[in-house]
Amino acid sequence: MKINGKAYRTIWLADDGSSVEVIDQTRLPHELVVISLKSMEDAARAILTMQVRGAPLIGATAAYGLAMAIRQDASDEAIDKAIDFLAKQRPTAINLRWALEEMRLSVQNLPHYERVAAAYRRAAEICDDDVETCRRIGEHGLSLIRDLAAKKKPGETVEVLTHCNAGWLACVDWGTATSPIYQAHDVGIRVHVWVDETRPRNQGASLTAFELGGHGVPHTIVVDNAGGHLMQHKLVDLVIVGTDRVAANGDVANKIGTYLKALAAKDNGVPFYVALPHSTIDWTLKSGAAIPIEERSSDEVLKMPGRLPDGSVVTVEIAAPGSPAGNPAFDVTPARLVTGFITERGVCPATRGGLLSLYPERGEK
Amino acid sequence: MKINGKAYRTIWLADDGSSVEVIDQTRLPHELVVISLKSMEDAARAILTMQVRGAPLIGATAAYGLAMAIRQDASDEAIDKAIDFLAKQRPTAINLRWALEEMRLSVQNLPHYERVAAAYRRAAEICDDDVETCRRIGEHGLSLIRDLAAKKKPGETVEVLTHCNAGWLACVDWGTATSPIYQAHDVGIRVHVWVDETRPRNQGASLTAFELGGHGVPHTIVVDNAGGHLMQHKLVDLVIVGTDRVAANGDVANKIGTYLKALAAKDNGVPFYVALPHSTIDWTLKSGAAIPIEERSSDEVLKMPGRLPDGSVVTVEIAAPGSPAGNPAFDVTPARLVTGFITERGVCPATRGGLLSLYPERGEK
Repeated sequence: MKINGKAYRTIWLADDGSSVEVIDQTRLPHELVVISLKSMEDAARAILTMQVRGAPLIGATAAYGLAMAIRQDASDEAIDKAIDFLAKQRPTAINLRWALEEMRLSVQNLPHYERVAAAYRRAAEICDDDVETCRRIGEHGLSLIRDLAAKKKPGETVEVLTHCNAGWLACVDWGTATSPIYQAHDVGIRVHVWVDETRPRNQGASLTAFELGGHGVPHTIVVDNAGGHLMQHKLVDLVIVGTDRVAANGDVANKIGTYLKALAAKDNGVPFYVALPHSTIDWTLKSGAAIPIEERSSDEVLKMPGRLPDGSVVTVEIAAPGSPAGNPAFDVTPARLVTGFITERGVCPATRGGLLSLYPERGEK
Repeated sequence: MKINGKAYRTIWLADDGSSVEVIDQTRLPHELVVISLKSMEDAARAILTMQVRGAPLIGATAAYGLAMAIRQDASDEAIDKAIDFLAKQRPTAINLRWALEEMRLSVQNLPHYERVAAAYRRAAEICDDDVETCRRIGEHGLSLIRDLAAKKKPGETVEVLTHCNAGWLACVDWGTATSPIYQAHDVGIRVHVWVDETRPRNQGASLTAFELGGHGVPHTIVVDNAGGHLMQHKLVDLVIVGTDRVAANGDVANKIGTYLKALAAKDNGVPFYVALPHSTIDWTLKSGAAIPIEERSSDEVLKMPGRLPDGSVVTVEIAAPGSPAGNPAFDVTPARLVTGFITERGVCPATRGGLLSLYPERGEK
């Protein structure tokens, strides 16, 4: 999508044909900074420090990270070690493991001298496939928004609430949860987005608002506390969020606080959809109870980056001095609270049967 | 309660016998600053800008504000005008109107020359009564915590979650929601408090954490998004919050986000209690739908104060430049989600019948 009129992806191969360049998302929304990742270690650090974030982009970055590792050492042992190292950077993200396994499959039966080229080729495919996947998610989600728009009076707006950033900045392009929104906006449907701030890292206020603003989509930032009140007052027609991992029964791991919005949606009869590519489904997990939940640094709660009036960016301490903080990064929304999934193959109920209706090949095993 | 070993109330008559002094809560937790309110206008500004906040403290400040107005002009017309002016500073807070009506009753049948002394006397009583009311709320809430502690194994802790600040800083002393916690801690029950940050104004992270830390109560700050996850994982035994206004049917207006925590408590079988003095009950309102919800400045969402490493306090912009924000300050939690009320007269169900069982005199009307 565009920033200041210039089209970007979140990750691309650099002119040297070896390193990759990414937008440093920890600097957004205050500064647009592109950084170069020249090694597996650079890629791992970018994932760990959330310079890249979002399940699909983490997968794409890990794929290129592994390609860079293979350029250093193409042996089976080195590849196994690199995959283990990259996979542990963000334990909740299933796409990270999925992308690394795809990379392994792409090289494991090749002679060592062919592995580097094959790995870069597969990493590029993973990126291109993600763009196409997100575009299709948007097409299917667009039909949901069209249905809501059809029930509106002339001049009325379809009100969508989203949590965290499942936008193009979380993917390679389009986004998952935002793809239906961009497509609705582009075809002229009046759509407005309530953007959850998404503490502690403020991905909503800093990233989702940044990218919606860049594309010209009307939106309003609200604190995470506000969504229930908005739904009580009929100010939300539809919730669309992304996910980091979906269990085979339809339970959804996503950014901390998603569960609370799902409860409010259920209590107020607001449809609650989760947009995801197939790679986010963890068919090996019977339920969300088995999804590991990452506990992140308390500094994310106790400190906050922001701009001073002179434009410089500083980090301030916001809490009572000496008070400790806890920081679980994700929660699990039970499938019973989810109206449906929007995937690249269509919309389905949030059940094992629903998922199998779109992915029948997974039922044959 | 104590700060750095020194006992404070939140408001007290100054040595001049005319002005009052308050802790400027907009400077907490970064600086402890006491400011002097010398006129009704000072009191009104302190309420509007939230230098004083919390339903009982707003009422106490308005009471002294009116006493200061009466010192200027003790006529009926001036008193009516002053009451109207003070009442409109925070439309959601029922205690503000209650305290002002109490003040009116205390002077209206007196000759003008007796009104000043009577008004200051009544304002002081409102403060002392609030301290006693909060102490009693704590006694009744303590019995709930004792029951939970009795079911624990030796060494285990009773885990309480609270939202916003319904602590002694919101009252004159003790607090409402925190009073049971302080009393449990003081009698040696192991208690730990999950403190909701409470965006956008961070009253939890800045005020509740500050006062719990000052009193030595173990606590952990979490973002508002985290409470549902904590409850899903059995890490919360009890939720206690305060309220700005309770309707006669038991619906509860409180800081934005309270509703989401009540939904999560219901979904996980966690008792959800609301602590309040009788003055917070609005018997004139049949349900919470009629409670006016204040929309506050978007700057509260888009900007945040904090400490730099050198100790200086600055305000930074935290969101995407140019993105608008919405800021509803309160939400209404339906009575069906509330386990019970803790008042100065005891614990009751969150129903009209429950309230009348504690306040039978209100049923006679």
